[in-house]
Amino acid sequence: MKLDTIRHSLAHILAAAVKKLYPKVKFGAGSAIENGFYYDFDDLKISDKDLPKIEEKMKELIKKDIKSAKKIKIDAFKLTKLAGAYWKGDEKNPMLTRIYGVAFNTKKELNQYLKAQEEAEKRDHRKLGQKLELFSINEEVGVGLPLWHGKGTILRHIIENYLYKELTSQGYEWLTTPHIGKLSLWKTSGHWDFYKENIYAPIKIEQEEYLLKPMNCPFHIKVYQSKIRSYKDLPIKFAELGTVYRYEKSGVLHGLTRVRGFTQDDAHIFCLPDQLTEELSSILKYGLKILKTFGFKDYEIYLSTKPKKYMGTLKMWQKATNSLKYACDKLKLKYQLDSEGGVFYGPKIDVKIKDSIGRPWQCSTFQIDFNLPKAFNISYIDEKGKKKEPIMIHRALLGSLERFIGVLLEHYEGALPVWLSPVQAWVIPVGARHQKYTKEIFEKLKEDFRIELKDENETVSKKIREGEIQKIPYLLVVGDKEIKTKLIRVRERGKGDIGEIKLDKFIDKIWRKSPNLRKN
Amino acid sequence: MKLDTIRHSLAHILAAAVKKLYPKVKFGAGSAIENGFYYDFDDLKISDKDLPKIEEKMKELIKKDIKSAKKIKIDAFKLTKLAGAYWKGDEKNPMLTRIYGVAFNTKKELNQYLKAQEEAEKRDHRKLGQKLELFSINEEVGVGLPLWHGKGTILRHIIENYLYKELTSQGYEWLTTPHIGKLSLWKTSGHWDFYKENIYAPIKIEQEEYLLKPMNCPFHIKVYQSKIRSYKDLPIKFAELGTVYRYEKSGVLHGLTRVRGFTQDDAHIFCLPDQLTEELSSILKYGLKILKTFGFKDYEIYLSTKPKKYMGTLKMWQKATNSLKYACDKLKLKYQLDSEGGVFYGPKIDVKIKDSIGRPWQCSTFQIDFNLPKAFNISYIDEKGKKKEPIMIHRALLGSLERFIGVLLEHYEGALPVWLSPVQAWVIPVGARHQKYTKEIFEKLKEDFRIELKDENETVSKKIREGEIQKIPYLLVVGDKEIKTKLIRVRERGKGDIGEIKLDKFIDKIWRKSPNLRKN
Repeated sequence: MKLDTIRHSLAHILAAAVKKLYPKVKFGAGSAIENGFYYDFDDLKISDKDLPKIEEKMKELIKKDIKSAKKIKIDAFKLTKLAGAYWKGDEKNPMLTRIYGVAFNTKKELNQYLKAQEEAEKRDHRKLGQKLELFSINEEVGVGLPLWHGKGTILRHIIENYLYKELTSQGYEWLTTPHIGKLSLWKTSGHWDFYKENIYAPIKIEQEEYLLKPMNCPFHIKVYQSKIRSYKDLPIKFAELGTVYRYEKSGVLHGLTRVRGFTQDDAHIFCLPDQLTEELSSILKYGLKILKTFGFKDYEIYLSTKPKKYMGTLKMWQKATNSLKYACDKLKLKYQLDSEGGVFYGPKIDVKIKDSIGRPWQCSTFQIDFNLPKAFNISYIDEKGKKKEPIMIHRALLGSLERFIGVLLEHYEGALPVWLSPVQAWVIPVGARHQKYTKEIFEKLKEDFRIELKDENETVSKKIREGEIQKIPYLLVVGDKEIKTKLIRVRERGKGDIGEIKLDKFIDKIWRKSPNLRKN
Repeated sequence: MKLDTIRHSLAHILAAAVKKLYPKVKFGAGSAIENGFYYDFDDLKISDKDLPKIEEKMKELIKKDIKSAKKIKIDAFKLTKLAGAYWKGDEKNPMLTRIYGVAFNTKKELNQYLKAQEEAEKRDHRKLGQKLELFSINEEVGVGLPLWHGKGTILRHIIENYLYKELTSQGYEWLTTPHIGKLSLWKTSGHWDFYKENIYAPIKIEQEEYLLKPMNCPFHIKVYQSKIRSYKDLPIKFAELGTVYRYEKSGVLHGLTRVRGFTQDDAHIFCLPDQLTEELSSILKYGLKILKTFGFKDYEIYLSTKPKKYMGTLKMWQKATNSLKYACDKLKLKYQLDSEGGVFYGPKIDVKIKDSIGRPWQCSTFQIDFNLPKAFNISYIDEKGKKKEPIMIHRALLGSLERFIGVLLEHYEGALPVWLSPVQAWVIPVGARHQKYTKEIFEKLKEDFRIELKDENETVSKKIREGEIQKIPYLLVVGDKEIKTKLIRVRERGKGDIGEIKLDKFIDKIWRKSPNLRKN
């Protein structure tokens, strides 16, 4: 029996069971869905507490063999939740009561699914973000527009400075461009025609129309064009942490991973045709190095080739696609071919990172663009003094800072590595007479680390509990013994009490945790 | 004879002189203006080269005593430029030729004025910004919307990181808030009613109206309100480098000092009533310390008191105004009273910084706000468990990052202090055989400094000239002698060759130049 058929049958068995228990109920409709099934009812006043009873009744009916139902394993399905749903999905119709269930072939599969769900729920970055006081989303401000609190801004700042340092050392120039610009820029780029449904309505200023920027490319091109570029200057690499705004329906918005405004770690590389292969290898290699620093070591890589509708010549596509393939091969990266999956303006490589429970997240992208250099008439002067068209690469490593932080939180279940932790340690005096020495330790540590002194009038055990909830990497407790021995007692996140240690040794220990630890 | 009368007479003498020289000319109108006069003509085809001739003719006429003109000192005026001007200022009318002149009571005054003009022109941040490749303004992107290039972004980054570090150490929490938000926020705050003419038209998203944010306050308030605040938590200090957008007519836009989008170094302090005086003293003191670090030591301070239309009680105003006065007195700051010059929501202190040629620039502001806490119903829980209203302070130190950088460039004539210089030194090999050693020096220096290696195939003298134009603080030249002695030859900006020095000593020397030098 196919799983889909089982789920379909269970929807009907659910309806029958509810009718047995609540004879006055009226049927809406039901269906098999991903992972399970649902059924809608009218005139049904029940709560979550009633679900086990309904589940029992369903099992009873299955045992009694309604139609072919005997083949359904009674221990491989579960009713999961209640929800409101409009009759036929139309909000003008009355609200019905929907019961959801999940169903699999075997009890084992069901349990695996339930466990993964539980795991995902513990890792929900929206809850973690609130618990760790990183950000909030406020309907009065606007859905999809996160407000970053103090600790969240520290986390952004660490990531931003890390990228700034790394990419500067790789020869990138950083740009800062405005959040609005003339509509005509995105008409020239083609974005207005191709992505209009994701762009917010223009703002009129003195008879000119301006857009809240949906992408940074036209601005980077204008900086490129602000002076004459020689072949000797190429490759020119512009990077920006550029905040862009794109329309998403309010219904699909989700925490930080689907928002209306987000900060791209965007870059555009202008290079000579014969620099393309080397540049691609280099940015791909460097991109993966950066992802690894954040703790992502497993990827799914997709190479998307020429679609049916495309710009540029066949030869250009072939050369560019080969460059992408060469870069992957050189780095010994396995990739899947997404045949004809490229954008109209060029082939690309997408990298999905896998988090600690195996879920893939779209993250880096490396795209070759044959369109913009033509559309904006970008040029460089070659060896012979002639104007030539450079090749343009778009690339983002983290993708969106908001989304990436969401993924980081889920990946680490909120327990961020020491170098990313907004607060790296708490220093806790046992009692009032230990405050002076605690303060000394605090002052010494805060020169290089992000430290909080917890000297409120509360019990040590309460502070430790609180520190564990807030996932603080180190809790340093100072009492009589520590003052006498000049040691500190360290509780390490996930390990508990790891004993007493000299302050200098402790500092060494933290430093070893990451090469990127230097407080910004 | 009053200066204004002199200038008025000169406008007419100018007309007469032009008529003598170009009999076919038709008169438009003329007038005395600030510093001088002008006159408009039709059918006059002349160039700047003709101005001295006209000036001579004017002097001739004055000597011949037209009306009362003899009292005009012929060496105290000067024709300065030609411009196009519409008849009666209406662009539907034909374009006339306008001749401008400047005039003073004495030759000395004229020379002082001309010298100041010349000085100001050398310091024009728009020209310096282009020469030093810091930013550009592109009409295709939008007037009043600067594009920051690589070096400009480094400068912003240095300033931003300096503020981040300083204010973090002062207990500020940094926030990051979106660039758009629901219009209703600024209706609640009152900005929509009071400043509508400076706010861009709303953007409609799913039946809701959103604004490009004109100020950050409502977002900071929403973060304050994201949890219950106790009197023990106060003062709470939120800071943000928040980019806001305000409408300015295209005609008044000017480089970085008058733009349409700018980044405020904004902060909001929520404090208990009895913390107000101390907080004000502390932020004022700290603010001036920060201005001093940037090289501004002279200020004009204005204390603005209760206007005719005001919010809150007389007692509140008195207390708040006294707190501001107390803060100034405590810091021994002289201030001018701007009687009734406060905003409707509270009294304030404004600080104008004086640049190196004595020009004042509005910069810091410290404002007490009685309006927003009420409008948004902000509260804290007091010792007795009761809801109370905190006092809110708005403050900006630099004001706008764009404007402040404009002022910095004019103040230093582009020769930024070492810690602010996007490029701190060039290392220049004399010839090809010195490249290896030069590279070693470069690698060593670039660990801690922003250094460029100038190994292009050009003469040393050309590189030195170029480095001087780009106002690079240090030019380090490496030739045979330097390789032998293991020293480096240093050219210091403004001083020229300062001799040979050991690399380590040179590094020490740079470090001493500023406590804020650490490369970010």
